[in-house]
Amino acid sequence: MNFNTILGSVDFLEFLRGKKATFLLSASVTKTCEIPNISQAGIPGKLYLTPTLDAEFLCTKEVRSLDDIAQTPKGVPTPALITRAVHELNAFSNIEVLDLGLENLPKINYFKTHSFDIKPSKRIDDGANINAMEIFQKGVEFGTNYETKDDYVILAESVPSGTTTANATALALGYKDEGYFSSSYKNNPNDIKDKVINKALENIDKEDDIFTKLSSVSDNMLIFNAGFILGSTSKNLKVILAGGTQMATVLLIVNSILESMQGNIDSSNIALCTTKWINEDENSNIKALLEQLSFPINAYASDFDFSESSHPALKLYDEGEAKEGVGCGAALCYASINGINKKELTSKIESFLG
Amino acid sequence: MNFNTILGSVDFLEFLRGKKATFLLSASVTKTCEIPNISQAGIPGKLYLTPTLDAEFLCTKEVRSLDDIAQTPKGVPTPALITRAVHELNAFSNIEVLDLGLENLPKINYFKTHSFDIKPSKRIDDGANINAMEIFQKGVEFGTNYETKDDYVILAESVPSGTTTANATALALGYKDEGYFSSSYKNNPNDIKDKVINKALENIDKEDDIFTKLSSVSDNMLIFNAGFILGSTSKNLKVILAGGTQMATVLLIVNSILESMQGNIDSSNIALCTTKWINEDENSNIKALLEQLSFPINAYASDFDFSESSHPALKLYDEGEAKEGVGCGAALCYASINGINKKELTSKIESFLG
Repeated sequence: MNFNTILGSVDFLEFLRGKKATFLLSASVTKTCEIPNISQAGIPGKLYLTPTLDAEFLCTKEVRSLDDIAQTPKGVPTPALITRAVHELNAFSNIEVLDLGLENLPKINYFKTHSFDIKPSKRIDDGANINAMEIFQKGVEFGTNYETKDDYVILAESVPSGTTTANATALALGYKDEGYFSSSYKNNPNDIKDKVINKALENIDKEDDIFTKLSSVSDNMLIFNAGFILGSTSKNLKVILAGGTQMATVLLIVNSILESMQGNIDSSNIALCTTKWINEDENSNIKALLEQLSFPINAYASDFDFSESSHPALKLYDEGEAKEGVGCGAALCYASINGINKKELTSKIESFLG
Repeated sequence: MNFNTILGSVDFLEFLRGKKATFLLSASVTKTCEIPNISQAGIPGKLYLTPTLDAEFLCTKEVRSLDDIAQTPKGVPTPALITRAVHELNAFSNIEVLDLGLENLPKINYFKTHSFDIKPSKRIDDGANINAMEIFQKGVEFGTNYETKDDYVILAESVPSGTTTANATALALGYKDEGYFSSSYKNNPNDIKDKVINKALENIDKEDDIFTKLSSVSDNMLIFNAGFILGSTSKNLKVILAGGTQMATVLLIVNSILESMQGNIDSSNIALCTTKWINEDENSNIKALLEQLSFPINAYASDFDFSESSHPALKLYDEGEAKEGVGCGAALCYASINGINKKELTSKIESFLG
């Protein structure tokens, strides 16, 4: 197993080889996920449970708020399986959950769940109705004060329909999107997503300030983590943004805020890590998204795929049915800088499927 | 490799996945071990050396106070081999020895050996003659003041004939024992053990207070570690009691002391970890022992066995000839939350036997 460099140089990730990581899961619900067919990341009608179940499974290998592991209708298993398998083979030193607006708290003990008094956000086609400035400031405060004994932080997300809110956010902030955004799944229900995004954009005015726009078309995870990133730079905390287009959008938000304030950021302690499935996706373009940033950024993609597996549910990843989530891309990059073997990892993931 | 939950939930042990452990070996001699055929855990006539040799082997892979690794007459090798093998594959950050009444100090440098000015205790059939209150207070003090840079402590024991003193202790304190206690070895020399236990119990009066009883029928390890547990809760130190029925008895003592004082304990930072051989033992019942506690306790058993080995000496474990000791059950649980592979571990253990 290895990783490829999307932008920047290998040095950031090579420096972290063998070092200790804390894994933070930003778990959030946007009611955008209640729009029929908007996302296949979870159980139809119960997508709001996905981040709760992902947190439970990652921490305990048990799904407690439901009987079965969340599976999509086509049977693509949650990427939490990949992240959990990495954790079993070479454990993160620490896992913590950030409750950025969950419907149900994960039923886990000992593992820290950070509360910020944040509620699930509304459907973006009706206006998300987020107090974006407040959420952002909570993120800044958390990033400024966050302490870890470990060498770096992997900041992951579980937000069903989060690629839709990310796409709307990037467009609202004026970034180009010429097919740069993917959904979690192949056969993009593009008409539905497009309709929702267009309707969301109708609710904002080009002249609105950034936070007004974010309040209407974004989600808590994107806004909070933009704050987290800005806060964390004040103390040289090394942070890996664990995800694809959603985490790229976090950086676009950071970029817009800095531009509006004519501020600067030392981005040398931040990187983005994602999967091969995102990096090689023909329906999105993570590199083009990141190239719109005014600051330099290191970005990497794991080279892991399921070529060692014959399990039909896992093969769907290689076929583009699922691509990212629950920090699986960063977990796979972490695996590659911690000596995990591809065969062993494949077997471990398969063992969860019985 | 994995672990099973005997009592409680997986969360405690899952939380410790990938975290750093200090291994404390409570090494103690009760002259009960001099009673012929009372135990097979060591070299006949030299059982008092077992904890010394276990400490040496665990720390250095060398047996210095004797020519050969302690072996039972039937050739069952000490469980220190298992703990040592785990340590070689994914090292404990730190090993320290608690001298709770050794005849011979282990010949080791650099590794800390804590001295408490405790002498080996006497045969329980003659009255152990322990100053139980003093030993207990030394345990409380040590637990209260113990500092570690690591995330948790594995508290193990090596006490030849320690299951006999544990059994007598539990009975003296009024706990049920309907075949709940095992010895280290199969074909329990039950007549000898029973005789010793009955004789020990004759020396106490039902109306005696707890410490008077403990002074007569117990051993230093049990009493000291009951104090350690109570002391450690004052500072939220996470402690794994590494053992089977002996460590369960430590908890029973804690329970009795709390009841006599009408005190409470926050037991959420304590767990017991043992082996599959104990958990599935038909001649003992660790779960029933622990269910007599008035406070909740997390308890786990490794699923490791020697099914991957064809070495006859190791196969004796699977046949019930040996089951626990030198914290091997907790070491195996530690292995399972640190990505150690069963085949690799089996080979490592086999390598010690030549």
